[in-house]
Amino acid sequence: MTIPPIAGARPDEVRRHNRTALLRRLHIDGPCTRAALTSELGLNRSTIKALVDGLAESGVVEERVPLQRSGAGRPSLLVLPQPHAAVVLAIDIRVEGVAIALVGLGGQILGRNSWNLYGRSSQPDEVVNHVVESTRWLVGELQVETAAVGVSVPGVVRRSDGLVHEAPNLHWTDIPLGEWLSTGLGMPVRLGNDAELGALAEHVRGAARGASDAVYVSADVGVGGGVISASSLMRGTSGYFAEIGHMVVKPGGRPCYCGSHGCWETEIGEAALCRALDLPEGSPRGAIVAALKELSAHPSLARDQLAEFIDWLSLGLVNVVNMLGPELVVLGDLFTSLPAAIIADIGREVRTRSLVSRAVGGTRIVPSVLGGDAKLIGAAELAFEPVLGTM
Amino acid sequence: MTIPPIAGARPDEVRRHNRTALLRRLHIDGPCTRAALTSELGLNRSTIKALVDGLAESGVVEERVPLQRSGAGRPSLLVLPQPHAAVVLAIDIRVEGVAIALVGLGGQILGRNSWNLYGRSSQPDEVVNHVVESTRWLVGELQVETAAVGVSVPGVVRRSDGLVHEAPNLHWTDIPLGEWLSTGLGMPVRLGNDAELGALAEHVRGAARGASDAVYVSADVGVGGGVISASSLMRGTSGYFAEIGHMVVKPGGRPCYCGSHGCWETEIGEAALCRALDLPEGSPRGAIVAALKELSAHPSLARDQLAEFIDWLSLGLVNVVNMLGPELVVLGDLFTSLPAAIIADIGREVRTRSLVSRAVGGTRIVPSVLGGDAKLIGAAELAFEPVLGTM
Repeated sequence: MTIPPIAGARPDEVRRHNRTALLRRLHIDGPCTRAALTSELGLNRSTIKALVDGLAESGVVEERVPLQRSGAGRPSLLVLPQPHAAVVLAIDIRVEGVAIALVGLGGQILGRNSWNLYGRSSQPDEVVNHVVESTRWLVGELQVETAAVGVSVPGVVRRSDGLVHEAPNLHWTDIPLGEWLSTGLGMPVRLGNDAELGALAEHVRGAARGASDAVYVSADVGVGGGVISASSLMRGTSGYFAEIGHMVVKPGGRPCYCGSHGCWETEIGEAALCRALDLPEGSPRGAIVAALKELSAHPSLARDQLAEFIDWLSLGLVNVVNMLGPELVVLGDLFTSLPAAIIADIGREVRTRSLVSRAVGGTRIVPSVLGGDAKLIGAAELAFEPVLGTM
Repeated sequence: MTIPPIAGARPDEVRRHNRTALLRRLHIDGPCTRAALTSELGLNRSTIKALVDGLAESGVVEERVPLQRSGAGRPSLLVLPQPHAAVVLAIDIRVEGVAIALVGLGGQILGRNSWNLYGRSSQPDEVVNHVVESTRWLVGELQVETAAVGVSVPGVVRRSDGLVHEAPNLHWTDIPLGEWLSTGLGMPVRLGNDAELGALAEHVRGAARGASDAVYVSADVGVGGGVISASSLMRGTSGYFAEIGHMVVKPGGRPCYCGSHGCWETEIGEAALCRALDLPEGSPRGAIVAALKELSAHPSLARDQLAEFIDWLSLGLVNVVNMLGPELVVLGDLFTSLPAAIIADIGREVRTRSLVSRAVGGTRIVPSVLGGDAKLIGAAELAFEPVLGTM
């Protein structure tokens, strides 16, 4: 990640630009020697020294002699980002519950809390109140200051002002959630669609690290997708993008709440997985994951029992790969628990059937690395984006 | 299109940056008064005067007193781009034939030529030879100098070096077309997928002007798509993107050459349209267009006769809109000839059935403005991109 030069910019602009790049490097890739920073960022040693000294002075980084020395001579000092130097609040709102976390510079989760929404009201104002109370408690407990908030919502979100246009599985419509949370928490709040943020997290810290084009497909109650294109998260008109759960895969299939029939979500979402596993629809998450774990030990049984589910998952993935041309598809959330043998089968099937996969030399289909935390981590990264530029 | 400032850049860089922006403005939006350039580009009058004077001196623009004067006082001079100041060669390779055009600054087609491939060999080396000969003749006839070449190919193209990975309907595989053309023509050559270039053309000069998120769907022999996202043409890994013709819409449907069954292309491509119109598959383009024109006068007959075709077109468009969230879908090539009443029906159907269309306030479905020339014009724009920056 050599820093692109700013032609002829003023010295203070150049310094800020370089400092942001260095912070981003440390935040995303972790501790690093001065020598490595010099070569990775394409800056000279004295510039790196001045930047690191400045950041060390203000407590944003710490320098240490590395434990393992390489080569002779004086070792290059290891630069460590200090988690408490910048802390953001990440909120993951799901149909079944809410999780919040305080996340420090470098991506470390400093503390977290979560509660169920099952059987309770999921009125948005009550969710906001609970988030505000919980945050107050967590911030007090950890004695940190928070700079910004990122929120993951399972629905269609307007980025400009944080309006939740439609979160169908929560039965929320036109809720000014960004405004409410910003008022309640007294901090700038950024909202994103949950699958979009899952994609962001897997790209920054998970299975899609280093990929330039990747798609994240996740099954929670609903099925959603997020797209990384040319190393950036794609966001469509007003923030609506990749509602891939509502791609019709089975014309004339089951009715979907969206008004269509045979949407991908109705064939591979949580309810479909319950049917495939002979569990009652609406079974608790733990029961579904346990059933999938059990099947992992018996691949041929898994293939039989999940045959129809696998067909629809593969067919939809062929479409996703043909339409978006990713080098990698990350299967998140519930899909993370699919037996490894099944994920391998699906990968082979997609590579065989997709014209575009053949053209790009074989799209890989892999499980999420971050699992259930992907959306929370993505929300934290959403909050960090503007923070890193102003530290 | 106010020019984003380059902070603290050197004067010659600023000048070049501003000159490119001014040229792009004139190239894309046509003749314009100095006064309008001043306000549109957010530059002061003396800067615009210096830029325009410089360009006029080198013959790139001409200044004229406008025919219609507005207001009192001395009229602001009209600045006209001179087509011959920069000419590119555009090549549109199709399954049924090849078209070439010399396109001048401002987008005017200065001359063109085309020939059929039906019944002839479409060996890529013969196509290259014919293009080179035809270009030589056309350039001699028009007495122009050409600066660059843009090529539209109905297949999967690698942008970096112009390798045609797969152009299935031409039966081309791994053809170094960019290299061959560049050697034969002695100019830099850029290649693009035909539907991608159709999207580019409709965005720059057609139905999607001013749209920030749009999708172009075209039916030639195959069905392809191009995506404008955040006002830019999307290009996936190595240039593979939006092979939407190979989205499976009808599981277990007709076999497609790509190895799948029931691809969108098999249900709404040229062959499907022939079947719907009771024409033999492989009928000449003229016969298909004539049959569609005739149906235009009889909407209810059209609805009956095309019912199944319309169903598959609508279903695929719902998927495209749900996955990509565009404000606008442009139907190109053969679809341009669909009866207006049918396009209106399809628009209503998509807006009713697509969750994302409802969220963005109603995706519009419109016919192409550029029709059969879209890909040729897109190829010219592809060639112009680097040329405008170096004039």
